[in-house]
Amino acid sequence: MGCPALLLLLLAFLAPGPVKALRPALMTLGSLHLQTNPTAHPFVTKDYSVLYFQQKIDHFGFNSVKTFNQRYLIANEYWKKDGGSILFYTGNEGDIVWFCNNTGFMWDVAQELKAMLVFAEHRYYGESLPFGKNSFKDSRHLNYLTSEQALADFAELIRHLQETIPGVKNQPVIAIGGSYGGMLAAWFRMKYPHMVVGALAASAPIWQFEDLVPCGVFMKIVTSDFKRSGPYCSETIRKSWNVINQLSTTSRGLQYLTEVLHLCTPLTPRDVQHLKDWIAETWVNLAMVDYPYPSSFLQPLPAWPIKVVCQYLKNPNVSDSLMIQNIFQALNIYYNYSGEAQCLNVSTTTTSNLGSLGWSYQACTEIVMPFCTNGIDDMFEPHAWNLKEFSDECFKQWGVRPSPSWITTMYGGKNINSHTNIVFSNGELDPWSGGGVTEDLTDTLVAFTISEGAHHLDLRASNALDPISVQLARTLETKHVKNWIRDFYRSGLQH
Amino acid sequence: MGCPALLLLLLAFLAPGPVKALRPALMTLGSLHLQTNPTAHPFVTKDYSVLYFQQKIDHFGFNSVKTFNQRYLIANEYWKKDGGSILFYTGNEGDIVWFCNNTGFMWDVAQELKAMLVFAEHRYYGESLPFGKNSFKDSRHLNYLTSEQALADFAELIRHLQETIPGVKNQPVIAIGGSYGGMLAAWFRMKYPHMVVGALAASAPIWQFEDLVPCGVFMKIVTSDFKRSGPYCSETIRKSWNVINQLSTTSRGLQYLTEVLHLCTPLTPRDVQHLKDWIAETWVNLAMVDYPYPSSFLQPLPAWPIKVVCQYLKNPNVSDSLMIQNIFQALNIYYNYSGEAQCLNVSTTTTSNLGSLGWSYQACTEIVMPFCTNGIDDMFEPHAWNLKEFSDECFKQWGVRPSPSWITTMYGGKNINSHTNIVFSNGELDPWSGGGVTEDLTDTLVAFTISEGAHHLDLRASNALDPISVQLARTLETKHVKNWIRDFYRSGLQH
Repeated sequence: MGCPALLLLLLAFLAPGPVKALRPALMTLGSLHLQTNPTAHPFVTKDYSVLYFQQKIDHFGFNSVKTFNQRYLIANEYWKKDGGSILFYTGNEGDIVWFCNNTGFMWDVAQELKAMLVFAEHRYYGESLPFGKNSFKDSRHLNYLTSEQALADFAELIRHLQETIPGVKNQPVIAIGGSYGGMLAAWFRMKYPHMVVGALAASAPIWQFEDLVPCGVFMKIVTSDFKRSGPYCSETIRKSWNVINQLSTTSRGLQYLTEVLHLCTPLTPRDVQHLKDWIAETWVNLAMVDYPYPSSFLQPLPAWPIKVVCQYLKNPNVSDSLMIQNIFQALNIYYNYSGEAQCLNVSTTTTSNLGSLGWSYQACTEIVMPFCTNGIDDMFEPHAWNLKEFSDECFKQWGVRPSPSWITTMYGGKNINSHTNIVFSNGELDPWSGGGVTEDLTDTLVAFTISEGAHHLDLRASNALDPISVQLARTLETKHVKNWIRDFYRSGLQH
Repeated sequence: MGCPALLLLLLAFLAPGPVKALRPALMTLGSLHLQTNPTAHPFVTKDYSVLYFQQKIDHFGFNSVKTFNQRYLIANEYWKKDGGSILFYTGNEGDIVWFCNNTGFMWDVAQELKAMLVFAEHRYYGESLPFGKNSFKDSRHLNYLTSEQALADFAELIRHLQETIPGVKNQPVIAIGGSYGGMLAAWFRMKYPHMVVGALAASAPIWQFEDLVPCGVFMKIVTSDFKRSGPYCSETIRKSWNVINQLSTTSRGLQYLTEVLHLCTPLTPRDVQHLKDWIAETWVNLAMVDYPYPSSFLQPLPAWPIKVVCQYLKNPNVSDSLMIQNIFQALNIYYNYSGEAQCLNVSTTTTSNLGSLGWSYQACTEIVMPFCTNGIDDMFEPHAWNLKEFSDECFKQWGVRPSPSWITTMYGGKNINSHTNIVFSNGELDPWSGGGVTEDLTDTLVAFTISEGAHHLDLRASNALDPISVQLARTLETKHVKNWIRDFYRSGLQH
């Protein structure tokens, strides 16, 4: 069995302290390429090319002429030079092949849109490392890991495709991305509208910054998912923290926790916060991947995994020992659905996982998302958002301090109505929807909510078990994309 | 007497070679603060505050936390907290006080718009030097001199004003600029539409890049100005180059040129190209400042200075010696209108002029504007645009090479129709209008041509001798600005 690298990121990064559980940096999918058994879409394995494009390491300065190779994938089985389109995946914090394998939606609509599919890897992830194995060495080498540089990479890559592949120049490009990649898709349309005629931003929490949304909304949605998935489920979890705290006060209790939770290493008082963070992280992860069919996104899981988990968490009023046994059963669904795990490991770090490292740095610089819990509106122990403490942790790990207001200065916060042609989709089950655009802003900045959707379910390949809500969302998304393509050809914007 | 620093920039920068005359980097107004006797607007001298704002030297990286003080000026005599507005001058390549003194338009409309006037100095110009006197030392120190960093400075400064001056947060901000500053105003609206409700981009050649306009258009307009200002004027100038070339073949001829042109130092064969560049530059400068009333923009000049100059250039068929005498009379209008010059100096360099240095660096990196002449459509000696040669010169001077396609990748080239609320104004006499937006692109991207206007005449204070065309342009510009302000208040976009 393996501990999900996402969690490990959190553990690896955070110094002990009450702020820990408040940083569900789960958005990071960077580590997911470690996934050994992805549910590959049938098209994917058979037909894409892996290519590399030489990018300037620094698009915003001229002192250095250093370059690196950005990896990208192209699939053009259904592309037509006549009346076709380019679907451009704005790669996020992970290996682009993994994203390619998990974005079946693009493959599903390729034929209808006569589309070339392009998947662009985000710098500092996968194989697109500006300084090779030294890329994460220190803040000097990490200096070019920003969303602005990534967007410039996309722009240069599109220009390269236009100049080197006959036919591309006269076709509309559509940006598509999910999660942080969805934020990039939206921001790309905002900042480079001359490059893409529109953007599909799936589960993109572009408002999870500063005070644009309440810091507690994320964990509140996680809680709501558990509440609706089984009677007394969220109450049971809310009560479990104190049970752990109580047991942790004695060595016998620590031993009991170690044994019942099947921990790989004996629990010490120093590890208790780690343990709780790890458990909290598990519930958060489940909320993200609460998909309607068996899937293998973060872990191999059954359909509607929270429902399965909640079958073990029906009673908040059991004895302490039974409570821990039930928590274990629940955790075991997530960590050991395959049945192969010998023990559960809460303290492994993932310094070898480039994706996690990169995201941790980004969260410490630009992508500063305030999170908090109060234990009332959510099922977690109360933790306030503490920027000072967060900043100190960042400085300790990376030698940098966050600029919490930069993203809204750069990308506009809630004042984005002058932009056009962006579809924001959100899953009602997805905790990231709390920071997303969930209502139409204008006629051309539209929002869809997928009532039964977790984290960018709409970007996944269609599935027989898909609920109506995601089928409808995909239909509407495709309609918008088709309208953008139609408008492009009508306007004669071709070069 | 003084040689205009603009010219000196050209001479200082360019290595000998045929490419010289093809770089009318005249857009650079950076040196103009050396102007000793500006026509100050009555309001200016009495009422503005000089302030400084701490900016990050690098907005696009987190490795360095270094900052510098950006200078800006605020005038709020007519500002009303109730229903007012903020007119934000996007400072270009020079001392902001000089621009403040030469942008009377903003002062003229302040009362009507209940406007606070803000003049933001561009980094690396005036007093806003990121590394003090080392700012131009080498390409490492110059690395943060880009339009993107300057726009980010503007965004951070506006945010600072919103957060520190009660009332600003709920008011619309309008970007205003001329020349390179006009490009910045337009680009600022494109990239940060959440910061400004609209932009007035006066004489902003945002299309003087790559092959968006013919490289010869600039010098063709210069020629046209001379053609229309007097019979045989442009023909005379076209013929003068060969006369200079002929005379330069003998030492007696060189001596004649030295004496008749009143050159401060004897002309040598090595200096002949310098001399011709300097003369060409003079004609270009005259085209830029061919204002309808006596002014002191580049030099103290009479009204319609080209007409005055052309009185000496009526006959292309005179003897070589008379031709040179006539050329001198013409030059003397430009360089010695005050009558104080003892001799004309063609080789002074301006390494102490920070504005010129900065612009030279910008022209060698991002702001790569192709210029050419063919001697047929224009009155100059033929010179092709030679990127290779230009790049080598840049590398020699700054250790950097230009990225000629970056600006269009970043700012969209001609594909900018998705943006809104930009007024582009151009003077028909201004050679920079050749690279400007001179026709409406959409309902909200509108263009005005001022038939009797030279370089951003509309931004200057109103004058009794203003032609109707500029009066009309100012009226329409003000109307658009008022509409943006009205729309802002109607939309309830206040924070």
